[in-house]
Amino acid sequence: MLKLVVANKLYSSWSLRPWAVLKAFDIPFEEIVIPLRQPDSRERLLEYSPSGKVPVLVDGDVVVWESMAIVEYLAESFPDRAIWPRDVRARAHARAIANEMHGGFQPLRQACPMHLGARFATPPLTDSLQANIDRIEDIWSGARNRFGGGGPYLFGTFTGADAMYLPIVTRFETYGVPVREATRAYMDTMLAHPVFTEWRTSAFNESWRIPDYSVGHTLIESYV
Amino acid sequence: MLKLVVANKLYSSWSLRPWAVLKAFDIPFEEIVIPLRQPDSRERLLEYSPSGKVPVLVDGDVVVWESMAIVEYLAESFPDRAIWPRDVRARAHARAIANEMHGGFQPLRQACPMHLGARFATPPLTDSLQANIDRIEDIWSGARNRFGGGGPYLFGTFTGADAMYLPIVTRFETYGVPVREATRAYMDTMLAHPVFTEWRTSAFNESWRIPDYSVGHTLIESYV
Repeated sequence: MLKLVVANKLYSSWSLRPWAVLKAFDIPFEEIVIPLRQPDSRERLLEYSPSGKVPVLVDGDVVVWESMAIVEYLAESFPDRAIWPRDVRARAHARAIANEMHGGFQPLRQACPMHLGARFATPPLTDSLQANIDRIEDIWSGARNRFGGGGPYLFGTFTGADAMYLPIVTRFETYGVPVREATRAYMDTMLAHPVFTEWRTSAFNESWRIPDYSVGHTLIESYV
Repeated sequence: MLKLVVANKLYSSWSLRPWAVLKAFDIPFEEIVIPLRQPDSRERLLEYSPSGKVPVLVDGDVVVWESMAIVEYLAESFPDRAIWPRDVRARAHARAIANEMHGGFQPLRQACPMHLGARFATPPLTDSLQANIDRIEDIWSGARNRFGGGGPYLFGTFTGADAMYLPIVTRFETYGVPVREATRAYMDTMLAHPVFTEWRTSAFNESWRIPDYSVGHTLIESYV
């Protein structure tokens, strides 16, 4: 059976991405949670991950780290599931936006770390942060308009691209980022998706907390 | 014919990656160079690239930006070329290290921007920079020991993973980064590779220069 190693579900945005792909496409897997910032975290991670980071997928003697590499591995291993869109143009577009997420949006990632257990005040919308938000909204509306077929997802059905952007949806929600109507609709779809609600429920039930994780952010409401 | 849009060859590390894949696998393409920091740079880029960034691959009505997405598109479009290793374990490993490069090593990228036209003094080897260097050396020796089959490349023959790390090889060279013997051997292979020497010759012949590009670095020797 596949094994996926993830970190604390409240905070680990990279963990959520391949986990969401596995769940959304009904691929059975064993989940191994290694909470961060525990005395043995690094040692336990290195058992699985040569980079010392999560997520890691273990499939027998195949070890894949890095969320995008895991998604590509799953897409190859389960060709009957449309983890990437079937149409070549849509698939190329999906990989482009997924990789743009993977390698970019540092200002947003820095200003709005994923935290599913609370709502915080919106941080100052600096030029670089607002440019990230604008670009992400353009990416979502661009994909849905061109490839979405009128459906709620970026490419008609849930794909690896939605999974890659799912933590961004939660950041917009957690920090009350002002967004366009079309963005709000996409966010509502993703936040109500059974894959996400299952992850969030599990996150709420975890006992590990990182007390200083949200330092510098103004708490509005805590859920955990 | 495929079109690849790239920026100044002296400086644009992301451009080099898919360009090297196209050249190394004898895939014919038309090259479009859009020099950065010209009055019309952004406008010309947006003609091709929805993100306003290079590189961009145009294949008829398929537009792919982001270097990793381009490599995946080429691997799919030219299945007879082994752009990724043929063996499933090696391929998963290649994608993992390629994506680790794509999304990481910020301290190295910041301290040692790609500049093929000069040699500079080694910047202070801070802990985070040295950790990047160590990790990259481990990645290279790890892949070669496990999958290299005694050959000079990471996976026996030149693959997309070598292309993704090629700009890193040039950074180590340009900034005289102290490296292990095995790393030096891999660097020598890559720096002498005909694909790289063709790119470098072309870079030297370009007339666009960004005068303040190397501010903060101590020039040792200029080639252009």
